[in-house]
Amino acid sequence: MAVYTTVTDAALASFLADYDIGEAVSFKGIAEGVENSNYVLETTSGRYILTLFEKRTDPADLPYFIALKQHLAANGFACPLPVQAKDGAALRELEGRPAVIVTFLSGLSPKNPTPKQCRALGTGLAQLHAAAADFEQVRANALGPASWPGLWANRANAADTLQPGLAALIEGDLAAIAAAKPHSLTLPCGTIHADLFPDNAFFIGDDFTGAIDFYFACTDALAYDLAICLNAWAFEANGDYNYSNGANLIAGYQSVRSLAAEEIEALPLLAREAALRFFLTRLVDWSETPLDAMVKPHNPLDYAARLAFHRTACSARDYGL
Amino acid sequence: MAVYTTVTDAALASFLADYDIGEAVSFKGIAEGVENSNYVLETTSGRYILTLFEKRTDPADLPYFIALKQHLAANGFACPLPVQAKDGAALRELEGRPAVIVTFLSGLSPKNPTPKQCRALGTGLAQLHAAAADFEQVRANALGPASWPGLWANRANAADTLQPGLAALIEGDLAAIAAAKPHSLTLPCGTIHADLFPDNAFFIGDDFTGAIDFYFACTDALAYDLAICLNAWAFEANGDYNYSNGANLIAGYQSVRSLAAEEIEALPLLAREAALRFFLTRLVDWSETPLDAMVKPHNPLDYAARLAFHRTACSARDYGL
Repeated sequence: MAVYTTVTDAALASFLADYDIGEAVSFKGIAEGVENSNYVLETTSGRYILTLFEKRTDPADLPYFIALKQHLAANGFACPLPVQAKDGAALRELEGRPAVIVTFLSGLSPKNPTPKQCRALGTGLAQLHAAAADFEQVRANALGPASWPGLWANRANAADTLQPGLAALIEGDLAAIAAAKPHSLTLPCGTIHADLFPDNAFFIGDDFTGAIDFYFACTDALAYDLAICLNAWAFEANGDYNYSNGANLIAGYQSVRSLAAEEIEALPLLAREAALRFFLTRLVDWSETPLDAMVKPHNPLDYAARLAFHRTACSARDYGL
Repeated sequence: MAVYTTVTDAALASFLADYDIGEAVSFKGIAEGVENSNYVLETTSGRYILTLFEKRTDPADLPYFIALKQHLAANGFACPLPVQAKDGAALRELEGRPAVIVTFLSGLSPKNPTPKQCRALGTGLAQLHAAAADFEQVRANALGPASWPGLWANRANAADTLQPGLAALIEGDLAAIAAAKPHSLTLPCGTIHADLFPDNAFFIGDDFTGAIDFYFACTDALAYDLAICLNAWAFEANGDYNYSNGANLIAGYQSVRSLAAEEIEALPLLAREAALRFFLTRLVDWSETPLDAMVKPHNPLDYAARLAFHRTACSARDYGL
């Protein structure tokens, strides 16, 4: 949670004058999104979210993210719709930062997802893939396997400090994945969310009401997105796999889009890759976040525990298929 | 800004079942209020703020704050109205914390208050005093002059570290104030907000739309509340007094309630006392806040600069009366 950049009421009023959405009547910084500053903005025309992009987001990527959300919304997938200013541009600048206003999405993020919510999330993920099927823009996955050796370099000691012997296990994961063919070359690809954690999904009761935070979206294997969700939605806090959550997530996904035989076969490896990606980025954040940072880093060991499960998984059946 | 306590969606649903305000459709932690955790809560019946009280708030004081807001709202002063549960109680418990739901107040907090906003704020402050005039509950000011020697004890070095020579000046302020009669014994008293900073006041344009955060409210000299506001609203970032802001604030106040001769005479001393109170509590927070805290403490030197102005002020005319 964070609000890194303060927006004065005067700067906001001037910013809104370039839009056709009325004047501000309420404006509150919210604890949502780790990378950027977010505000709930109410104007005389309705409610919105105002995001200011901080330095970790590459401004060159922003037009892709905005176009993707516009495409998804136009194709019936519930996500925040970027609002165009009077000049037609949705990406503008405020307080020296790239800034965008998007429509407000109702719903709550589940802290302990239920099997029913996992089923709805799986369905929603497949609907996202379907809605993005004819999205023509391409963005490489900046956190794909090619990036992992660089993330891992010189961090073996940090890993062993967290858990003695962990570094050797991670070396084994990296070697196993390097020995396999890159999933983006062998499996059906498309536009994936790549970060659809419970924090980024909204529900009312058991109904999925939409997804937010598309700032890791990229072009990659569709089943890898499912593998990311299995990691994020189907593990207990103690590291145990929640078979019921996982089975429902996969079933929900397949109710919209059937997995191909090669995707099913690849699922344990994809899940291991997804866990490794989050382990590595969390290890970097854990090592590099100053003690006085406003945002506490996630503990990488949560994903070391998931990796332990994936190393022993034999087939998609172990995930509930 | 802070959200200290996480509320699960399941705990929220169970909590809301005791109210008649419908079910949650949106719930976002907000960066508002330094002492407590605050959420914007939207239900099927409307918008609210949910506050969880953290350890710095004495639970024994909460019924006073809630009764005060109910009294003010009933007397037409715009402030968050505590919502009663089905059993009639507004103060309940959630995630192991005392918790209250209040109505949502529109408006934005000004970052650089204008003279017109200061006039409206002064008017609003006097209206608050008028609305509270027949509020019968009493709460001593826990941060009144009697508390200051204790806050100052053993902090001379901290002050001199911030600004060489500052400790001797603060000793002089404490001696001057101790030599005067306590303002709560010599001036008209009533219920005061005691923390009506721009963060705690809402405006739409130049119109004051209400006040929030009554958790320092107490029974004290009414003109002391005005002196607190002069400190909070009428100084530039560089420490200069903003005469236009101050004059408008006082004029707005007097448009509703005329200051008595003894209040006018006491104004420079009251302003000095108010500045000392905030200097001391900020000095304590500055010294005691761990480096990795989620909330950055205010710099006490902002109030050292205000004290320098107040020491040289001769009369209320120096403040714009």
